[in-house]
Amino acid sequence: MNLDALQDAVVNFAHEREWEQFHDAKNLCMALASEVGELNAVLRWVRNDEVDAALADPRRKSALRQEIGDVAILLILLCARMGTRLDAAVIEKLELNTHKYPADKARGLPEDPGNTP
Amino acid sequence: MNLDALQDAVVNFAHEREWEQFHDAKNLCMALASEVGELNAVLRWVRNDEVDAALADPRRKSALRQEIGDVAILLILLCARMGTRLDAAVIEKLELNTHKYPADKARGLPEDPGNTP
Amino acid sequence: MNLDALQDAVVNFAHEREWEQFHDAKNLCMALASEVGELNAVLRWVRNDEVDAALADPRRKSALRQEIGDVAILLILLCARMGTRLDAAVIEKLELNTHKYPADKARGLPEDPGNTP
Amino acid sequence: MNLDALQDAVVNFAHEREWEQFHDAKNLCMALASEVGELNAVLRWVRNDEVDAALADPRRKSALRQEIGDVAILLILLCARMGTRLDAAVIEKLELNTHKYPADKARGLPEDPGNTP
Repeated sequence: MNLDALQDAVVNFAHEREWEQFHDAKNLCMALASEVGELNAVLRWVRNDEVDAALADPRRKSALRQEIGDVAILLILLCARMGTRLDAAVIEKLELNTHKYPADKARGLPEDPGNTP
Repeated sequence: MNLDALQDAVVNFAHEREWEQFHDAKNLCMALASEVGELNAVLRWVRNDEVDAALADPRRKSALRQEIGDVAILLILLCARMGTRLDAAVIEKLELNTHKYPADKARGLPEDPGNTP
Repeated sequence: MNLDALQDAVVNFAHEREWEQFHDAKNLCMALASEVGELNAVLRWVRNDEVDAALADPRRKSALRQEIGDVAILLILLCARMGTRLDAAVIEKLELNTHKYPADKARGLPEDPGNTP
Repeated sequence: MNLDALQDAVVNFAHEREWEQFHDAKNLCMALASEVGELNAVLRWVRNDEVDAALADPRRKSALRQEIGDVAILLILLCARMGTRLDAAVIEKLELNTHKYPADKARGLPEDPGNTP
């Protein structure tokens, strides 16, 4: 499905329930914090070296995919509310990151050198 | 841009920097918590009744759009890592929510009745 | 209850369940993201001008207080794991903030001037 | 320092800057999402088996302790706003968890059986 059709489906779902009244940008940001919290619950006690095995279980994988869906729905609603597009936001940020993390300098290093002694 | 091309651009960006070594599903979830935290910083002290005016300022709007980009990039990387697609996750969750929140019962009510006395 | 006794109670609770094996600093940070997400769920659809009224309802207030408890328990476990103390972390940060936000300059302004055009 | 004195120091810091106007319960929850995001940034790319070594570096440990301080300050402000106490919230939640996770049944198992197939 292309992104326009996806955004239409999400916006329409909220509209049918008259949820626009709750969905200003501030509330949607808070809801994103809430849903990303649920996403973090899925793997919080799973060690890095056990993650691939854990996600080989269809129930765990489905739980994580559902949380991804929740986060993406809120992101799309926030973009719609702001009159912007999710793909435009991604492309704009990739371009900024291309300058911030030149491939030849950033290669193999974590993205947060400020936190990396 | 369609979602396949967008995912390719994001995955390629990380690949050029050899960041796959950091990007297992657990670390990407933690990074999502971090970036959604930055997104929440933008409007945390802005009241609901001032949000639209605050986002009429191009600098504030750009700050929020950049954080949306960061969150979306990580979501796309997480989907790629799991061998799933962002649009499939959204459509699957919309279908689940259609049953969880029937339009005729959910209309005009907040989405979290459990938290709403 | 003083903070030493509180930390002992929390650490002992986890110890009785042999949960130290899950509670390294990384996992505790992820768990904090999860619990702060639940905390954000409580008021996400409540507008600023309705918050005091919403918290006058004992069930809503109790829901929020329980989430505060969850977050605080994880913070205390993280401090214990790091061999540091919660009160020391607070006092250290207050001192840093005293320099970052001098009272005569910060008075009446939001704390995040970078996000405030 | 005891918790009453700690809460007084935190509340007084905010009062001297006239920040009560920003600090309703909703905004403080959002600010908690933001600061827990910063806390998650510190270890997001560090694997579980490297966490102890990473925190042996005084700069990394100090970075994490500062974020703990930020989160705790906001928790204390939220308690003060609600007319409740942080230690009371912790003790109340420990009691609830004692029933939810009986020691003889929960021993050695992760805390989120719902997410654990």
